[in-house]
Amino acid sequence: MIDPANLDITGTAEALAAGDFTAEDLLRAYLARIERYEAGMNCFITLLEEPALEQARASDARRAKGERLSPLDGIPIALKDNIDLAGVPTTNGMARFRTPVRDAAITQRLRDAGAVFLGKVNMHEGALGATTNNPHHGAAQNPWRPGFTPGGSSGGSAVAVAAGFCAGALGTDTMGSVRLPASYCGLVGLKATQGLISTRGVVPLSYGLDHVGPICRSSRDLSLMLAILVGHDPESTESIHPHRALRTKGVTLQGLRFSVPLNLAAVACGPGIRENFEAHLAALERQGAVQVDLRFPTQDCTGTRRAGLLISEAEAGHALEAELLAHPDDFSDEFRQNLEYGRSAPAHRLVAAQRQLLTVGQRARKLFDEVDLLLLPTAPQAAFSHSDKAPVNQADFTQWANHSGCPALSLPCGLSPDGMPLGLQLLGQHRADRRLLAMAELIEPLLPELPMPAL
Amino acid sequence: MIDPANLDITGTAEALAAGDFTAEDLLRAYLARIERYEAGMNCFITLLEEPALEQARASDARRAKGERLSPLDGIPIALKDNIDLAGVPTTNGMARFRTPVRDAAITQRLRDAGAVFLGKVNMHEGALGATTNNPHHGAAQNPWRPGFTPGGSSGGSAVAVAAGFCAGALGTDTMGSVRLPASYCGLVGLKATQGLISTRGVVPLSYGLDHVGPICRSSRDLSLMLAILVGHDPESTESIHPHRALRTKGVTLQGLRFSVPLNLAAVACGPGIRENFEAHLAALERQGAVQVDLRFPTQDCTGTRRAGLLISEAEAGHALEAELLAHPDDFSDEFRQNLEYGRSAPAHRLVAAQRQLLTVGQRARKLFDEVDLLLLPTAPQAAFSHSDKAPVNQADFTQWANHSGCPALSLPCGLSPDGMPLGLQLLGQHRADRRLLAMAELIEPLLPELPMPAL
Repeated sequence: MIDPANLDITGTAEALAAGDFTAEDLLRAYLARIERYEAGMNCFITLLEEPALEQARASDARRAKGERLSPLDGIPIALKDNIDLAGVPTTNGMARFRTPVRDAAITQRLRDAGAVFLGKVNMHEGALGATTNNPHHGAAQNPWRPGFTPGGSSGGSAVAVAAGFCAGALGTDTMGSVRLPASYCGLVGLKATQGLISTRGVVPLSYGLDHVGPICRSSRDLSLMLAILVGHDPESTESIHPHRALRTKGVTLQGLRFSVPLNLAAVACGPGIRENFEAHLAALERQGAVQVDLRFPTQDCTGTRRAGLLISEAEAGHALEAELLAHPDDFSDEFRQNLEYGRSAPAHRLVAAQRQLLTVGQRARKLFDEVDLLLLPTAPQAAFSHSDKAPVNQADFTQWANHSGCPALSLPCGLSPDGMPLGLQLLGQHRADRRLLAMAELIEPLLPELPMPAL
Repeated sequence: MIDPANLDITGTAEALAAGDFTAEDLLRAYLARIERYEAGMNCFITLLEEPALEQARASDARRAKGERLSPLDGIPIALKDNIDLAGVPTTNGMARFRTPVRDAAITQRLRDAGAVFLGKVNMHEGALGATTNNPHHGAAQNPWRPGFTPGGSSGGSAVAVAAGFCAGALGTDTMGSVRLPASYCGLVGLKATQGLISTRGVVPLSYGLDHVGPICRSSRDLSLMLAILVGHDPESTESIHPHRALRTKGVTLQGLRFSVPLNLAAVACGPGIRENFEAHLAALERQGAVQVDLRFPTQDCTGTRRAGLLISEAEAGHALEAELLAHPDDFSDEFRQNLEYGRSAPAHRLVAAQRQLLTVGQRARKLFDEVDLLLLPTAPQAAFSHSDKAPVNQADFTQWANHSGCPALSLPCGLSPDGMPLGLQLLGQHRADRRLLAMAELIEPLLPELPMPAL
């Protein structure tokens, strides 16, 4: 039997369709890996072995009758533990939070597509941070190196895919929390246009900045997942109609206009980050792409990051108010103090932060009047040791897609001098998600292919 | 010569086109009325007699060459004093504020249409209130009765039109500040779909709730003004593309589905308000319109009004921060204290207010899945004496259009038992402004015609 740990979702769907293995075989292969490696990964908060086996068997029964619900039918997916799955606890990375009676909008979409729910995975507490060194559920480990962070806040989602526990997972991204762990773990991760994928049934961090997104092994998988996840949700205040997000015009690298919207020389980057990035720019130019000199409206990554943090702390402080008052011990001291800080900040500071990000985001969207694509490293550093202090600037390159609402994704693009994966971030025009994915599929073959990490 | 004080904008444009009078004649007729009645009205903060005469003569010169810029060419318009006109002080109803070097986006649109800028008019201080009893510029007087409020915050805009100083004025509407003075003064007033008319160059009260809108004598004038004022403004963070707002399908009263979305029996209404309103509902039903039983998501007008106030105080407190710090004496104690209250409120209260209005507004928009039109009295009372305390619930019926972003307008619909004008409020589907105006033009002839007030 083919080892499913090496396959992407698309390849797995083809193997299932060809009868190379059944959905139950597939799940059992993943469960065997989980059995063997989970203790070293600390990936799962809730593993759903029995319900997943039932779902896999039901999928096999459908397939036997020629009734496949979607390419995802029978394929195990891991959910970040801030996404509601009916009847299963949602911890939000806290000691406890709630057990929902209803699926999140996106969970329902996955269910309707026949996905198998493998489990709920570890995350940075409350999604407010990017190490997934979780005080209640332990530190998730980077499959590329024990003791190293997988990034966050969707760290467990990236671990699940990178460790070969499944081929796809969902995370959430408020300042970069899907793209950062994808980058740190050698995977692809997508944050679609704001509002395109419903966040209903996902614990809020920031109402306006939150996004749900997939972490997978290939950009073709991102397209497959996006097609399943997108859809107007009339119950969600943030949901938009898809419109042109799903249209693609012919995209070629020849003549493609791109820009690097920050002066990277002025940002503290880890070893090899800039060199790796510049090599990829040169490769793109060799394919006929044209670099245009355009910059984000400000180089002040710190100011915009702090504005995003204040908004997140105030809004999560509002969203989690009942739990803060009733069960303060379910929060770590640090997380509780951050929320209390945001809750009690004077309102004019929150207004200033909201206006700042609205203005910066709007001006960033305007750059696409002149270019097709913005490129940045996904993060200013590769994954670091859990024993090191987290760099403050982890989200300095990813935050812009949240402020602007533009789609952005991370592609694995090589290794740091220290042997840890790096990510190349592509930002596309607002509501032109399909075009961004088409560009990603053209750029992906230019980048070095990473092996599976040796566990 | 025809007395221009009796004409609406459309009629004035026709008379100008027919050569019944020139733009200079027209302006001089208005200036004569202003000379005679302004002392009793307290309408103008800045009267622009000389520049207006120049603009009127330039319009006449264009007309002589057959080069009319728009139907508005040569017609005097009054601007609320929170709307920037280049080179003229904008007081925002404060002691002083700024002298802009640049027109507001809408001022530029009026200028491009050939409008004559008659002056900047009185308003409630900072637009935060609805009496236009201004501590710095005096109490504007209702042309229908000396000593009575014209409403607010765009009180001067309504006085200018009702007193026959001009045929049209611009106001701003954050919770009802265009529709309330229109109602109190026997005029029509429109708040278009949120974002359809740019607010760039207008002093902010609340970034998300602010709207600019015209006050005129007829609903056909609202259509004329809307066509001139609408347009995407790439410099404005709040601006939207017109899309379907400007499309009209055939609208008839026969079969039109409407609803009264609040239980008026549970609201403290002034004498005659409910009886007048119900008579108009009956008249609509006689025309074949069908009343449907649908309600706003909450009857809690007080809760939503307070949320809107907190947002306005916090956001205006942010927008006016530099002036608050540098020139506190330019603010009345009450206005300054209100802004300080909003500025210093804990951020979680602001988040709660923002979420409340977002949810209420979204659910209110959903009502248009089932009806074409929502109807309410514009205000729970007619104009009252400046010596009476302002009722707290003035904006309880108007605020919903701001929370939802839906277009709404007020039509004069008779007199209170005490002889003061009343208004009928029509709310239409989000971005279906033209359809709302088409309904207004069908309903207007069913309502009693009011005379000009005797000054």
